Amino acid sequence: MTRTFNTVGIMGKPNNPAVAETAGILHEFLLTRVMNVLVEEAIADGMTPKPELTVSREQIGTKCDLVIVVGGDGSMLNAGRLLANYEVPVLGINRGYLGFLTDISPQDMVKKVGKVLDGKYIEERRFLLHATINRESDEHETQNVGEGHALNDVVLYPGEISKMLDFEVYIDDQFAFSQRSDGIIVSTPTGSTAYALSGGGPIMHPNLNNVVLVPMNAHTLSARPIVVDINSCIDIYVGETNPHNPQISCDGQITLPVKAGDWINIRKTSRQLWLLHPQNYDYYKTLREKLGWGAKL
Amino acid sequence: MTRTFNTVGIMGKPNNPAVAETAGILHEFLLTRVMNVLVEEAIADGMTPKPELTVSREQIGTKCDLVIVVGGDGSMLNAGRLLANYEVPVLGINRGYLGFLTDISPQDMVKKVGKVLDGKYIEERRFLLHATINRESDEHETQNVGEGHALNDVVLYPGEISKMLDFEVYIDDQFAFSQRSDGIIVSTPTGSTAYALSGGGPIMHPNLNNVVLVPMNAHTLSARPIVVDINSCIDIYVGETNPHNPQISCDGQITLPVKAGDWINIRKTSRQLWLLHPQNYDYYKTLREKLGWGAKL
Amino acid sequence: MTRTFNTVGIMGKPNNPAVAETAGILHEFLLTRVMNVLVEEAIADGMTPKPELTVSREQIGTKCDLVIVVGGDGSMLNAGRLLANYEVPVLGINRGYLGFLTDISPQDMVKKVGKVLDGKYIEERRFLLHATINRESDEHETQNVGEGHALNDVVLYPGEISKMLDFEVYIDDQFAFSQRSDGIIVSTPTGSTAYALSGGGPIMHPNLNNVVLVPMNAHTLSARPIVVDINSCIDIYVGETNPHNPQISCDGQITLPVKAGDWINIRKTSRQLWLLHPQNYDYYKTLREKLGWGAKL
Amino acid sequence: MTRTFNTVGIMGKPNNPAVAETAGILHEFLLTRVMNVLVEEAIADGMTPKPELTVSREQIGTKCDLVIVVGGDGSMLNAGRLLANYEVPVLGINRGYLGFLTDISPQDMVKKVGKVLDGKYIEERRFLLHATINRESDEHETQNVGEGHALNDVVLYPGEISKMLDFEVYIDDQFAFSQRSDGIIVSTPTGSTAYALSGGGPIMHPNLNNVVLVPMNAHTLSARPIVVDINSCIDIYVGETNPHNPQISCDGQITLPVKAGDWINIRKTSRQLWLLHPQNYDYYKTLREKLGWGAKL
Repeated sequence: MTRTFNTVGIMGKPNNPAVAETAGILHEFLLTRVMNVLVEEAIADGMTPKPELTVSREQIGTKCDLVIVVGGDGSMLNAGRLLANYEVPVLGINRGYLGFLTDISPQDMVKKVGKVLDGKYIEERRFLLHATINRESDEHETQNVGEGHALNDVVLYPGEISKMLDFEVYIDDQFAFSQRSDGIIVSTPTGSTAYALSGGGPIMHPNLNNVVLVPMNAHTLSARPIVVDINSCIDIYVGETNPHNPQISCDGQITLPVKAGDWINIRKTSRQLWLLHPQNYDYYKTLREKLGWGAKL
Repeated sequence: MTRTFNTVGIMGKPNNPAVAETAGILHEFLLTRVMNVLVEEAIADGMTPKPELTVSREQIGTKCDLVIVVGGDGSMLNAGRLLANYEVPVLGINRGYLGFLTDISPQDMVKKVGKVLDGKYIEERRFLLHATINRESDEHETQNVGEGHALNDVVLYPGEISKMLDFEVYIDDQFAFSQRSDGIIVSTPTGSTAYALSGGGPIMHPNLNNVVLVPMNAHTLSARPIVVDINSCIDIYVGETNPHNPQISCDGQITLPVKAGDWINIRKTSRQLWLLHPQNYDYYKTLREKLGWGAKL
Repeated sequence: MTRTFNTVGIMGKPNNPAVAETAGILHEFLLTRVMNVLVEEAIADGMTPKPELTVSREQIGTKCDLVIVVGGDGSMLNAGRLLANYEVPVLGINRGYLGFLTDISPQDMVKKVGKVLDGKYIEERRFLLHATINRESDEHETQNVGEGHALNDVVLYPGEISKMLDFEVYIDDQFAFSQRSDGIIVSTPTGSTAYALSGGGPIMHPNLNNVVLVPMNAHTLSARPIVVDINSCIDIYVGETNPHNPQISCDGQITLPVKAGDWINIRKTSRQLWLLHPQNYDYYKTLREKLGWGAKL
Repeated sequence: MTRTFNTVGIMGKPNNPAVAETAGILHEFLLTRVMNVLVEEAIADGMTPKPELTVSREQIGTKCDLVIVVGGDGSMLNAGRLLANYEVPVLGINRGYLGFLTDISPQDMVKKVGKVLDGKYIEERRFLLHATINRESDEHETQNVGEGHALNDVVLYPGEISKMLDFEVYIDDQFAFSQRSDGIIVSTPTGSTAYALSGGGPIMHPNLNNVVLVPMNAHTLSARPIVVDINSCIDIYVGETNPHNPQISCDGQITLPVKAGDWINIRKTSRQLWLLHPQNYDYYKTLREKLGWGAKL
């Protein structure tokens, strides 16, 4: 079953001339191909000519059959967390510097977007994580004091430089391990080629239903990444003796304050992101070209 | 649904007095609890008194409702590859030195085996890999020239010391990467705490449907382990320019010769091993106690 | 040539009852063995009875023939950076939790300190690093805007969570590499078993005249630690495009603000710390016992 | 003080047409510049026209003021071990595939060799290791049963695939660690960018007086490389329970059989290799270009 793309939205990195220029060319092209083209207000402001139909960030997901994101992986993470709510499919044009998720280059844009509109695309589902911070109130009740979604990763940081963090990790209500480290990265397969890889985690194929826990500079020789099922309940207890301002970061874009004694619950969301790729998309080629992975000397 | 254990088999490391002694105690205990106790011939020889009912290695799987393996992880791997054919469940008594798979200690044996016979156990399924070596004949036909099963891992070795191996890896018919290295470890979650871990692979929870490919001392800075779905078709092409005697090892126990130009196909088998554990089995505790994993300094 | 210890100083972690108690016992013992015992004011306050002779932190190095530090590695780093100025030898009593540098346990204190006073000790020299931050003023002159000493390591941090840092490293005026990462650890052999080890650096024997540069979570697959001569000039240029508040940390105890565009010069100091150990001191045993290094499963 | 190059030798990889061709051009050029050009017999055979003056491998070191090696790093290792005996300087032309040691490309050969002959070169000293295998005879006397030199590394291998090795390492007569692994790499700084790097060792600048011990796939989570002084006495005891045929490899080129119970002594030799480079030689550039080290994504 092929999707029908009557209304196509354009999102992107705001205040960026290169993005605005590419978005302009894309806009013009889409007008020749689909019934409605809606441009997110934030990016529309920078475009010349200013597009006729604009839409708020809040509404773009409800009104479009497809959203095309112009920018880097950061823009896609940002858009992806939003659009996963509406199950609207997303396509990415790379104007950033790595472009793992935004895999169409501006030069190929017209040709490749055209093919996607013709129904020639690959569709991938990427799941998201949901992190909740739970704190015991003075009345010994547990309160949700913060939450966020992540397409790549949920990262726990000490929040102060050169202070290590003490925490305990429970998986499906079983104590798994405690650690003294610079924190921990809980990453989806999507995030496995991002920060988790820098931290020493394995590459995980995007179609896997897994999460990897990657310790960051652990103060022990025996820490290793562990891969678990995405449906696992991952709970992190931030020890009482920690520095004052630990923090959680979702996709490196949302920051939530944590206190010593808090519990952080990380779960798969019911949301998922539908990511489209041109038909010749080749994951391993992306790994080789963008990461230099597996290059022989 | 609980299994019924009328006939219980005993297997184990042959020619090992400690194993024979433990098997003797186990045998005596089982006689008080189940209808039939069958002892594998190889181990029966060393037991005093010699057990009445013995059975060949070939038949033990067809005749028993449960097989108890006395030995180390090596004995369990050996037995597991065999018993997976018959879907007979297996329980392990540790007389080896790590005992990841054989998780009941001889001291607790009578008590814990008793509980398992009472139906108080956890049941786990572990999948196996099947490796086939394919060679083009002079008539340009492809012939299967060797095959083996693995519960832990299939490892490709150069076969000569200080000679690196050149090979290419394809996943689901897509070229993934080429490599010049000391070989590659293709490991199940079961094997992820064995050789793959020594090679820098992640720990994978045993319930995952994954395989990890771990490069061994790759001659590049950019090699990293990759985790893929267990249903992936993993094909390794051994380059033409390789040293004379590459080899494949299954679980470090079966060795198969490979030639330059061969293709190695690695697939999940339809077989699976049913591994029983006492009810208080705790995977993460095993990781912490047997690997020292996650210990804080 | 053996040192003579007429005046012995006591330093330690202030406001810590366990440290004060151990310092009290040590003080009493020293009074029976040496001519003068001077206690640093900060620790003297917590001791009962309060010692007669106290000395300021500024003067302890000039007045003593030996300083004994009671505390953890943090206390020793703190004292060591100070005492290196005066070339007064230092001995450590462990009241911290790892005690790599403070290698005498409180239980053995009286016996082992006694032996050291008898001249039965091993003497080790540990060198220090000096980091200077240089900034171009509006008049295009370069100004030293911050500096610090380090016994373990000089670490460059982004200063904000989930922001990577871009920088370039020059060694002896040659461009070595550029990096996008969570920063870099420049560590002495002394520091090689501390934070640098968490970051993936090698262990370096304390007698080496080396420095290791350890990248932290580099955003590339090809980053590796590099070991260079301690007399190398190590210069780090913090790229213009960086987040607002990079920071340098010396031994995790001194923090210095850095700005995009700054140069950080790291050099060996002419200072060195003389560290004493009991005669049965065994570096490799310390590695095995305190790090669990090289333990077989 | 500049060296004088009256007699120049040519060595190289035998039976290799590309090497022979480059050696021919080099030979012709040298005849125009120096008094005598001596070609090693093994390579002379393949050259057209056959050079007039040839010399045996045994004599080349005694007769030349400079030897130029045409080939890859393997050829240079081979020549280097020999020529270190005579302290004759060596220059390398790369006809191999990485060329860390043979850093002049055939295209630049005439120009760069010319400059070297003009005295415009950088001179580097590289030290060698000497490994001795000692075995207790039936009369309880210790006998040297094998020895070899290495410019890169001495590697201890199990000698059979999928058999781990048990051994103990002593440094300066102190027990350092025991290990169960695929063996160990003892590497010079020269070798630190070769096999030791594949095994996870740090890069060590060639001017360092260090050796690094790199465990290979150790069966523990706590193994780490350790860097020690080159003058350390490194002794490896191969445990009694090992597989039948452990082996030592020097530079991957000399193989020596080892038996369970043997002691392997590794020491710095008094020999050193004088390696010449063109004046614009830049070690870090070589790292970046040949290893892709430090590349940003």
